Amino acid sequence: MSLLVTGSIGIDTVSTPHGTAESVLGGTAVYFSFAARHFTSVRLVGVVGEDFPDACREVLTRREIDLAGLETRAGSKTFRWSGKYHGDMNEAETADVSLNVLGEAGPKVPASFADSDIVFLANTHPALQRELLGQLSGPKLTVCDTMNLWIDNERDELLKTLSAVDGVIINDAEARQLTGRINFVEVGEALLAIGPKFAIIKKGEHGAILVTGDGPTAIPAFPTKNVVDPTGAGDSFAGGVLGYLAECGTFDTAALRRAIVRGTVCASFTIEGFSLDRVLQIGRDDIDQRVREFTAMLRIE
Amino acid sequence: MSLLVTGSIGIDTVSTPHGTAESVLGGTAVYFSFAARHFTSVRLVGVVGEDFPDACREVLTRREIDLAGLETRAGSKTFRWSGKYHGDMNEAETADVSLNVLGEAGPKVPASFADSDIVFLANTHPALQRELLGQLSGPKLTVCDTMNLWIDNERDELLKTLSAVDGVIINDAEARQLTGRINFVEVGEALLAIGPKFAIIKKGEHGAILVTGDGPTAIPAFPTKNVVDPTGAGDSFAGGVLGYLAECGTFDTAALRRAIVRGTVCASFTIEGFSLDRVLQIGRDDIDQRVREFTAMLRIE
Repeated sequence: MSLLVTGSIGIDTVSTPHGTAESVLGGTAVYFSFAARHFTSVRLVGVVGEDFPDACREVLTRREIDLAGLETRAGSKTFRWSGKYHGDMNEAETADVSLNVLGEAGPKVPASFADSDIVFLANTHPALQRELLGQLSGPKLTVCDTMNLWIDNERDELLKTLSAVDGVIINDAEARQLTGRINFVEVGEALLAIGPKFAIIKKGEHGAILVTGDGPTAIPAFPTKNVVDPTGAGDSFAGGVLGYLAECGTFDTAALRRAIVRGTVCASFTIEGFSLDRVLQIGRDDIDQRVREFTAMLRIE
Repeated sequence: MSLLVTGSIGIDTVSTPHGTAESVLGGTAVYFSFAARHFTSVRLVGVVGEDFPDACREVLTRREIDLAGLETRAGSKTFRWSGKYHGDMNEAETADVSLNVLGEAGPKVPASFADSDIVFLANTHPALQRELLGQLSGPKLTVCDTMNLWIDNERDELLKTLSAVDGVIINDAEARQLTGRINFVEVGEALLAIGPKFAIIKKGEHGAILVTGDGPTAIPAFPTKNVVDPTGAGDSFAGGVLGYLAECGTFDTAALRRAIVRGTVCASFTIEGFSLDRVLQIGRDDIDQRVREFTAMLRIE
């Protein structure tokens, strides 16, 4: 199945206890695409400014990523983010953010992408998420993420978007903030009550909880001490989940459970290096091998 | 195999968002025993005061728990603890604690218990933990827990105890505090470097991490929204782990992984009620049924 992602394409500066990476390629749609590409071809929809470095563009090209939806906007600047991770590295402290082109009009879905089967709306203004959905001719599966900014300031718009999608992939703190619940099974059920048929709550180093009409599934993170930079882990996770669903073509609970394992493994590679450093080194074989290790770890009689 | 536990037997008053339980039976050795008894007979070693209520004593008797090591000390009072859980209920806020008999001389291991195969030293002063170990004639497996008080104030004694046991079962915050590491795989490896052959780090609602010479295993908690009172969850977990190891008679990584599943399930019942309310309602069939549900949840191709 075809898979479309829309989200940020950015230039990040990241510090972790392992070092600093300056002005490297990042962004939700980028991390998503580099995970999902192992399972299906990916249609990327996003906007960069005319300052977008050739070196970053070079990384995006010659992969299984269709860049027909990548707009380079004249007179605009690319989204930039810088942040630091401390301690358990579960959450970044944002040092600086320049929305730049992300604060302007949203991207357009090219006509050649309108027939996409699966759509991931990475975090952006929830009204823009719906506007992007409206440019599609009838996707089979729509999934969104969101963030605290919209939960605080655009709650009604966000609820409209959530009631329009099939699934939500959201981090733990934001899912609790949105639903007012603390227990993650209750959080998931509260998300389903808004509209989606499934909710996946991302808990960083503690793994993920899937809630569907069939009940909850808890999956741990891949246990590793090799954590260099967590940036993009959540988006790589989502990319692995939806990439796998596009490959297998079914979206039932059993498929979602298998998909979460793939997402977990994709995220486990992302955090092993800064930016896409580690992600660019791996192939499908590496993912499949780690999926075997991870499912074997979870297979207990 | 025979299983001995030594730890607190107390009277708890607990408040959670679900209500309050006043002056109910609690204590580490009690919760441990009521989980482990489903797998093997349990030898309980502990001290209560002469104020220990008949109703509490009644709960302890007529179970698969050998009370030959239960001392009722004349002139002393039973350990009492009261605490409150808020929010995510992962940690209690202690409102009041009266050590009473726990601040006096430790319990004695009866001669009939000296040949115990497996020993769990629940949290107490680490020197007392070693003194209890010294009363045994050559256990096949020794495991201890500890707490922040001893990490802060009796570090050298604690390190001596840790280097004398085969395994440690410890909660996440205390394991981090003890080792100075944050990543749980590194935390586990640092614990092994002190001496034990395995470390199990308890993460409450996020499950547990086992680290052995064979590497790490992450197991989630049993996902449930039925959380009435988390008191005793960690000790029930340890009871399920060591009860299962006593039943199966081997202590390799595969057995430890299976044991953690049993511990997780035992803990999942404990939190469904105040004190031992729920624990007293269940039998081995209930545990086995939930073990099947839990392992099926984790079995993903």
